[in-house]
Amino acid sequence: MSNKIPVGILGATGIVGQRFVQMLEHHPWFEVAWMAASDRSEGRAYGEAARWRLKTAIPDRVGKMVVSPAKPEGAPKVIFAALDASIAAEMEPAFAAAGCIVVSNSSIETQAWRKKSGGFVVTNPNCSAIGLVLALAPLDQQFGLETVMAVTMQAVSGAGYPGVASLDILGNVIPYIAKEEEKMEEETLKLLGKLNGAGIVPGSFTMSAQCNRVAVEDGHTESVSVKMKKKAKSEEIIAAWNSYTAEPQKLKLPSAPAQPVVYLEASDRPQPRFDVEHGAGMTTTVGRLRPCKVLDWKFTVLSHNTIRGAAGAALLNAELLKAQGYLG
Amino acid sequence: MSNKIPVGILGATGIVGQRFVQMLEHHPWFEVAWMAASDRSEGRAYGEAARWRLKTAIPDRVGKMVVSPAKPEGAPKVIFAALDASIAAEMEPAFAAAGCIVVSNSSIETQAWRKKSGGFVVTNPNCSAIGLVLALAPLDQQFGLETVMAVTMQAVSGAGYPGVASLDILGNVIPYIAKEEEKMEEETLKLLGKLNGAGIVPGSFTMSAQCNRVAVEDGHTESVSVKMKKKAKSEEIIAAWNSYTAEPQKLKLPSAPAQPVVYLEASDRPQPRFDVEHGAGMTTTVGRLRPCKVLDWKFTVLSHNTIRGAAGAALLNAELLKAQGYLG
Amino acid sequence: MSNKIPVGILGATGIVGQRFVQMLEHHPWFEVAWMAASDRSEGRAYGEAARWRLKTAIPDRVGKMVVSPAKPEGAPKVIFAALDASIAAEMEPAFAAAGCIVVSNSSIETQAWRKKSGGFVVTNPNCSAIGLVLALAPLDQQFGLETVMAVTMQAVSGAGYPGVASLDILGNVIPYIAKEEEKMEEETLKLLGKLNGAGIVPGSFTMSAQCNRVAVEDGHTESVSVKMKKKAKSEEIIAAWNSYTAEPQKLKLPSAPAQPVVYLEASDRPQPRFDVEHGAGMTTTVGRLRPCKVLDWKFTVLSHNTIRGAAGAALLNAELLKAQGYLG
Amino acid sequence: MSNKIPVGILGATGIVGQRFVQMLEHHPWFEVAWMAASDRSEGRAYGEAARWRLKTAIPDRVGKMVVSPAKPEGAPKVIFAALDASIAAEMEPAFAAAGCIVVSNSSIETQAWRKKSGGFVVTNPNCSAIGLVLALAPLDQQFGLETVMAVTMQAVSGAGYPGVASLDILGNVIPYIAKEEEKMEEETLKLLGKLNGAGIVPGSFTMSAQCNRVAVEDGHTESVSVKMKKKAKSEEIIAAWNSYTAEPQKLKLPSAPAQPVVYLEASDRPQPRFDVEHGAGMTTTVGRLRPCKVLDWKFTVLSHNTIRGAAGAALLNAELLKAQGYLG
Repeated sequence: MSNKIPVGILGATGIVGQRFVQMLEHHPWFEVAWMAASDRSEGRAYGEAARWRLKTAIPDRVGKMVVSPAKPEGAPKVIFAALDASIAAEMEPAFAAAGCIVVSNSSIETQAWRKKSGGFVVTNPNCSAIGLVLALAPLDQQFGLETVMAVTMQAVSGAGYPGVASLDILGNVIPYIAKEEEKMEEETLKLLGKLNGAGIVPGSFTMSAQCNRVAVEDGHTESVSVKMKKKAKSEEIIAAWNSYTAEPQKLKLPSAPAQPVVYLEASDRPQPRFDVEHGAGMTTTVGRLRPCKVLDWKFTVLSHNTIRGAAGAALLNAELLKAQGYLG
Repeated sequence: MSNKIPVGILGATGIVGQRFVQMLEHHPWFEVAWMAASDRSEGRAYGEAARWRLKTAIPDRVGKMVVSPAKPEGAPKVIFAALDASIAAEMEPAFAAAGCIVVSNSSIETQAWRKKSGGFVVTNPNCSAIGLVLALAPLDQQFGLETVMAVTMQAVSGAGYPGVASLDILGNVIPYIAKEEEKMEEETLKLLGKLNGAGIVPGSFTMSAQCNRVAVEDGHTESVSVKMKKKAKSEEIIAAWNSYTAEPQKLKLPSAPAQPVVYLEASDRPQPRFDVEHGAGMTTTVGRLRPCKVLDWKFTVLSHNTIRGAAGAALLNAELLKAQGYLG
Repeated sequence: MSNKIPVGILGATGIVGQRFVQMLEHHPWFEVAWMAASDRSEGRAYGEAARWRLKTAIPDRVGKMVVSPAKPEGAPKVIFAALDASIAAEMEPAFAAAGCIVVSNSSIETQAWRKKSGGFVVTNPNCSAIGLVLALAPLDQQFGLETVMAVTMQAVSGAGYPGVASLDILGNVIPYIAKEEEKMEEETLKLLGKLNGAGIVPGSFTMSAQCNRVAVEDGHTESVSVKMKKKAKSEEIIAAWNSYTAEPQKLKLPSAPAQPVVYLEASDRPQPRFDVEHGAGMTTTVGRLRPCKVLDWKFTVLSHNTIRGAAGAALLNAELLKAQGYLG
Repeated sequence: MSNKIPVGILGATGIVGQRFVQMLEHHPWFEVAWMAASDRSEGRAYGEAARWRLKTAIPDRVGKMVVSPAKPEGAPKVIFAALDASIAAEMEPAFAAAGCIVVSNSSIETQAWRKKSGGFVVTNPNCSAIGLVLALAPLDQQFGLETVMAVTMQAVSGAGYPGVASLDILGNVIPYIAKEEEKMEEETLKLLGKLNGAGIVPGSFTMSAQCNRVAVEDGHTESVSVKMKKKAKSEEIIAAWNSYTAEPQKLKLPSAPAQPVVYLEASDRPQPRFDVEHGAGMTTTVGRLRPCKVLDWKFTVLSHNTIRGAAGAALLNAELLKAQGYLG
C-alpha cells in the first residue's frame, strides 16, 4: 500500500480534470483515490467516461477506477476541483463544509478561508492572468510597475470541452472572451498586490487587457507593454526574469519548475507550438524584449493555460498546503 | 474592341498579382493587356504559370494570355506591380524611366515623383498600417490622436507565396514579422501626417506596434488602444467611423467602398473569417469599442491584407490618377 | 408586392438554415416570408437570433424578420426544413399533415409521398453521398458500375453548429462519423438505382465507404476507386463527366449549374479551399483520374456539403416541384 | 569519456535531422559526435543554425556543437543521413566509399550493399509505406494478403521544412503528393516480399494507394481495405496485431517498442493528434476494424511519419546493425 496522500478529483472527465490525472500520475506525495464527474459518468470506468484529450495515455490504474457520485460521502480529505464556475459555486463549499480541503481551479470570489468543519477552499487565478503575473512579478519587485497593457491570443483549451466550435475558430481570430478582460485586469492587480490583514491591497499600477481567441490548442500568448518607475536596461530586465524564484522554488515543491520564468533569446520566440511545454508546462517563457515608443518596454509572454494556468497551479497550491502543514 | 485603358501586371503570378487579375476582371476603366512574371513563367499561358490561390476562377481570357518578359518593351503605359521588395527596387524605376506609370504594391522609400520620361511610381502603404490608418483617420480628424498602441494578428497571405511554412503556423502564433513593427509605426504616422511642400509632416501622436502572425488565410486583425486630445463619447466615436468618407468616395472611384469604415455592433466582431470580405474586401471593419483603463478607448480593427492592404489599394491609386487626369 | 412564391424556413438559424437564407436572397421564384427556429429564438429578429456563420452579410430584409413559433399555423405552403434528424422526424410530418409541402434537408426513411392534406415531404440525400453520386452517375450511365470504394475527408460544417469541437479537430483527423458510412453506402446505391412502381431498385454495384472528418470548413473531398463493366479510356471518362446533364439542366432550373460535374485538369485538384465554390457551390468537381491497380480507375471528388449537399439540393428539389406543377 | 559509439548526422538541421538529435539524446549505445548540414550552417553552433521545430528543447551539448562541412574527412564511422533525395544520391555513396556506414532516411534504389571500402548505405522505407506495412505484416503472416487498398491523409512534416506552404494547407486537403503513390505501392509490396538470394521477391498481393495531404503536424493516417486468402474473425485479426513482434523486439533493441502494433478499441481512434506518440512514436496504432462490402475488412492505421517513418526507422536499422555485429 502506498504512503501517499489520497486525493480526489471533482470534474475529472473535463480538460482540466484530465490534466489533474496526468500530472498526478507519478506524483511523489499525492495519489488519485477517488474521482467524480457529472451524472452521465457516474458508475462508469474513468477510461470509458472521459473523452481523453491528451497526448499521453490514460494511466492504467486510473482508467479502471469507477467514477463516484459527486458527493462528499466517501471522498478523501484533499479534493482537486475542476468544475464549471456555475457548478463550483455550490459544490465546492459543500465539500468544504463536509471537512474537505478543496483545491479549486475556479475563481470563487468571496468565501471564508476556513470553515468550522476544518475544510476550506483554495482557488486559482485566471489562466490568462497567471502567465502575465509571473512575467510581471520580477519587474514589479525590482523596478516597480506603473502601467501594464496586455493583448492576449488564447488557446481553445482555455474554454474547456467541447468549448470553442471548430466552425468559429478555423482560420479565424475571435476578439472576445466573455468576462475575461475584467478578470484578467482585476486578478493581475490582486496577485501583484499585498496581503494586509484579512484583505488584499491591489498593485498600484494601471492595467488594461484585450483578449482574443486563436486557433491554438494549448498556450496563451500575450503581447505586453509596460512602464516602470525605475528605469532599467534590457540586460537587467532579462536578468530579473531569469533569476526570479518564489516560495515554490524555496520549498522545492515537486511541481515547481527550477526556473519559473525563462527568457528566450531567439528573435521570434516564445511560440505556443514549440515552447508551451517548457518546464513540463510550468515555466512561463518570455521573449522579444524591446523598447516601446509609448511605454518603456514591450515583450511577448507565453504560459500553458491548462497546466500552469489551471491544474498545475492547483497542484502547486496543494503542495504548498502540504509543505506548510495544512494537510495534517 | 474595348475602350478601356490597357494595363499590365508585373509579378502577375504571385498572391497580390492574382488579386490584381481578380479585381480587374470586371473593371469599368481598366483591362489587363499584358502580364509579366519571373523567367520561369515567361512564354507560358498565365493559367498554367500561376499557381492560382483564389476561390474565384481565373478569368478565361487572362488564363490564356501569354506571360511576357519583365521588360518595358511592349508593356502598356499603366503598370500594376506586385513584386518582392528586392526586385521592385530595380525593376519599378526601370519601367518608370521607360515612361510607364507604375502603380506599385511595394513601399519604396525615396523616389522622385515624376521622371523626365513622363513615367513615375506610386507606392502603397504597408498592409498592416492601412487598416489601422483607416480606423484612426476619423478619430484624428474629429478628436485629435495623442497616443496609439496596436497589436496585430496577421494573416499568412501577407507573407506572399510560399511565404509562411505550414510547420511554422499550424496551431501556433509567431510573435515576430521582420521589420513589420518599424514599418507600421512609421507609415501610420506618415499616412496621418500632412503634406508640406515636397515633404510630409508626420502625425503628432506617439505610436507603438507589436506584430504577430496567426493561422488565418486573409485579414489582419488588430487590438488597438488610443488616447485622444478631445474627450469623446462612445456614440460620437462610432458616428465618426460610420460617417467617414475621403477622396475615393467623393470621386466615386469604382473600387471605393461606399463606406470605408464600418462599425460592427455585435460584441464579438470583427472576425477575419466572417468579416474580411465586407465591401468586397475594401472596407475596414471596427468593433468592440470600450473604455481603456490606461489610454482612453480600446477597439478591434480588421482589414483585408491582400485587397485593401495591397491590390485594392493600388487599384484605388490608379483610379485616383485617372480621375485626376494623370493617365492622359 | 412581389409575385414570388412565399416560402418558410424551419430551423432557420442553423448552418443549413443560413444557407437557405443566403441562396434565397436573390431567387427568381421564391421569397422568404416566414422563419422558425428553436424556442430560444422565437420572437427575436432573425439577425439577432442567428449566429450568422457565412461570409456574405445577412440580407437586410431577412435580418429584421421576426422568428415565428415552429408551428404550421401562419406558415406558408412551401417550407424549407433544416432540422436535426430527431426533430425533423416529428415536425416535418406535422407540417405536411397541415397541408405544407416540406422540402427537407433530412433523410427521413419511410414516409408516404403524398398526404391526404395535400402536403408532403421531399427529402435530401446525405451530404457525402450526393457529390459521389454526381461523379458516378455519368460513369454508370455510359460504362456500368461494378464496384465503388470511397474514402471521405469531410468538412466540419457537415456536423452543424456548434458541431465538431475545435479541440477535436485542430491538427487532427477523426476517422469516424456516426452512421455516415452506412448512410453513404445505402444512399449511393439508392440514388443510382431505378424507380420501379412505388419502390426503388438499388444500383447493382457493390460499394464500400470510409468516412473521416478533417479540419476543413466547407467541402467534402473523396478518394474514389471504381470498377466498370465496360472498359473505357481516360478521355472517354472525362468526356462523360464534362458532358453530363440531368433534369435540372434540361428544365433550366434557376439553381442548376450549367455543368453539374466538371473535370479539373491540374494534377493536384480539386482542393476544398480553392474549388468548393465552383458553380456557386452547386458543381461537383473531379480530378486526378488515373488507373487503379486493384479496380479500374481512381480519382478525387469534391462537393460543397452545405450547398450542393444540403440547402442547394433542397432548393433544386423545390424548383423541380415548381417546374413540374406541384407547387400549384 | 563515454563508451558509446560516436555517430554523425548528415542533414542535421532539417526536420528529420532534428528528430535524430532528439532520439539520440539519451540513447544507450550511440552518441552524437559530429553534425553536418548545408553550407549556410557550416561553422555555426547547431543551436543557432537549426530552426528547431520540436517541442522538447535542443539538448544542451548538441546545441553548442559546431556544424562541420558535409565531407567524410573527420566524420565518425556511423552516419545517420537525413538528406533531400537529390543530395542523398551523391553524398551518401561518397561517405560509404570513404568507409562510413550510412544509415539513411532516403530511398535510394540501386546500390551495392557493401562497398570495398567497408562502408555501405542502409536505406529506409517511405514514411507512408512503413505504417501500412506494420499493420499488414501480421495479417499477411497469418491470413495471407490478396488485395490492399489504402487512402492516406498525410501530415505536413512529411514534406520537410519549409515544405508545405500554409496558404496551401490551411482549411484544405491536397489530393496529390508527387511520386508518393507509386513509392507507397512499390515499397509496401517489397517490404512484405521475401529475400531471394541477392534480390527481393515482392509480396504476391495487389495494391492501390491514394495519397492526400492534410493540415496535421505529425502522423500519417490511412483508411485501408484488405482482402485476405484465409477468412478470419475480427478477434483473430485484432489478436494478430496485438501479438505481433519482429526482430527488433526479439533482440530487445533500445528503440524498439514493446508492441510494434497496437489495436485501439475506441470507436473513433486512432487520431493523429492524440495517438501519434504511442510507444514514443514508434508504435503503429490501428483501429475501427469492420467488414468491408467490397473486400473483406476495413480499418484505420496511424504512424508517426518523422519518428517511425524516418528517424526512428533509421535508428532501428542502426541498432540492428550493431546487434548483428556490423558496426564492428
